[in-house]
Amino acid sequence: MPQRLKLIVAYNGTAFAGWQSQTHRNTVQDHLERAFRHVGGERVHIHGAGRTDAGVHALGQSAHVDLSGRRFSPARWTGALNALLPPAIRILRCQYVTQDFHARFSAKGKVYRYRIWSAPILPPLEFGRVWHIPASLDVDILKAAAEKFIGTHDFAAFGVNRGKSANRTDSSRGEPEASNIRTIYSVRVQRKGPCLAIEFFGNGFLYKMVRLMIGTIVRASLDKMTVAEIVRQLSLGQSTGARFVAPAQGLFLVRVWY
Amino acid sequence: MPQRLKLIVAYNGTAFAGWQSQTHRNTVQDHLERAFRHVGGERVHIHGAGRTDAGVHALGQSAHVDLSGRRFSPARWTGALNALLPPAIRILRCQYVTQDFHARFSAKGKVYRYRIWSAPILPPLEFGRVWHIPASLDVDILKAAAEKFIGTHDFAAFGVNRGKSANRTDSSRGEPEASNIRTIYSVRVQRKGPCLAIEFFGNGFLYKMVRLMIGTIVRASLDKMTVAEIVRQLSLGQSTGARFVAPAQGLFLVRVWY
Repeated sequence: MPQRLKLIVAYNGTAFAGWQSQTHRNTVQDHLERAFRHVGGERVHIHGAGRTDAGVHALGQSAHVDLSGRRFSPARWTGALNALLPPAIRILRCQYVTQDFHARFSAKGKVYRYRIWSAPILPPLEFGRVWHIPASLDVDILKAAAEKFIGTHDFAAFGVNRGKSANRTDSSRGEPEASNIRTIYSVRVQRKGPCLAIEFFGNGFLYKMVRLMIGTIVRASLDKMTVAEIVRQLSLGQSTGARFVAPAQGLFLVRVWY
Repeated sequence: MPQRLKLIVAYNGTAFAGWQSQTHRNTVQDHLERAFRHVGGERVHIHGAGRTDAGVHALGQSAHVDLSGRRFSPARWTGALNALLPPAIRILRCQYVTQDFHARFSAKGKVYRYRIWSAPILPPLEFGRVWHIPASLDVDILKAAAEKFIGTHDFAAFGVNRGKSANRTDSSRGEPEASNIRTIYSVRVQRKGPCLAIEFFGNGFLYKMVRLMIGTIVRASLDKMTVAEIVRQLSLGQSTGARFVAPAQGLFLVRVWY
């Protein structure tokens, strides 16, 4: 019987081609699987709570892996894996869990943060970690627009349906595979000088959903569309025009709740 | 008569071989001079307030340049230069100044900040921006040790004398060239979770002085030397043993005062 290990992983998305394994093997999943192979001496498959795109960062991604070989202590796994991983990927902690835990299907909710730098000049140390918008945003409108997403909606206008298997996100177990219905529990907008941080806590997110919500509320706060239009798209369950995707580098997966 | 332009420059030191021009031309000064040549159509020499080593960051380096050609507005210089510079270097602002202003010799003081991450695991987004010390530091000792540097001392034990011309830092005009006497006006130690920030405000700094002071106070806070030993080296004006240089990536030039 294999032992299941749960991992909390942080990474700087700048250097990687996203989370999910690819043939050129410079993804976070590939680096983790390679490190496990070196430390534990067996080929493993890592299951992440969610796939993040190239450039997207994680402060607390969750994952699990089944191990049939050596049973090291969690602290020993953490130390040995971090010694092999590039410094842009860190295992923050790990713990053994029972087989009924699944990083993706057991997730009850996720927190995503999106950072915007609204000032003419982007400080060099913020490059790759924010969306730089050298225009002045109306923060009141941005806040009002962001809060419209709270609740249970058909997010078809604010997500990409990746089809049967890709759409099996945490919230969709037991629901029809192609459902675009998600619940946002809370939204928090914080301003610190030119830096805006918008946090979404929801039971699940469609592919590109946070970046589409952010692209839309930024347009509203630049007076290029109305908040009423956002409400209309949410109630219609479909987009009424061009969609605007905020860039990957401002997005952070903060935490996965179980 | 050339026009003198003062620049405030920020950079992420990770990508560059330090401030000062070198033959392989990937220094901050080289990038700036190249950008000026493209925008203004003339070869210029940039004078920085201080040379920072490879890996050292700047939030507010100062510099000046003499321009004989086009007289753009400061805002136009800023915009045009930033459009050509890599995102890891930004002109934050610039202004025309009189010929008696000199970025290095007119400087009255500088603020340097040094960041330490004292926890077993370094978050990926902090890599290259702190000194990671996976041991537990005694912050009370660190603070007490840091404060011993306040005042006017012979910093020979905590600096490298770069000889006649190299030693002409801001504070040495009118003093003997080889003087190692500097004044630290204030020291501030701030803790935020595992992150320690130590700020020094002084009238001038010898080469590697901040990194040698930090290397020393960290040794004291790890109980590898006493605070009394630091006081002794300051009063002797010479080192009494091996010297410890903190790594470049934790150091930030915050501001130059005129």
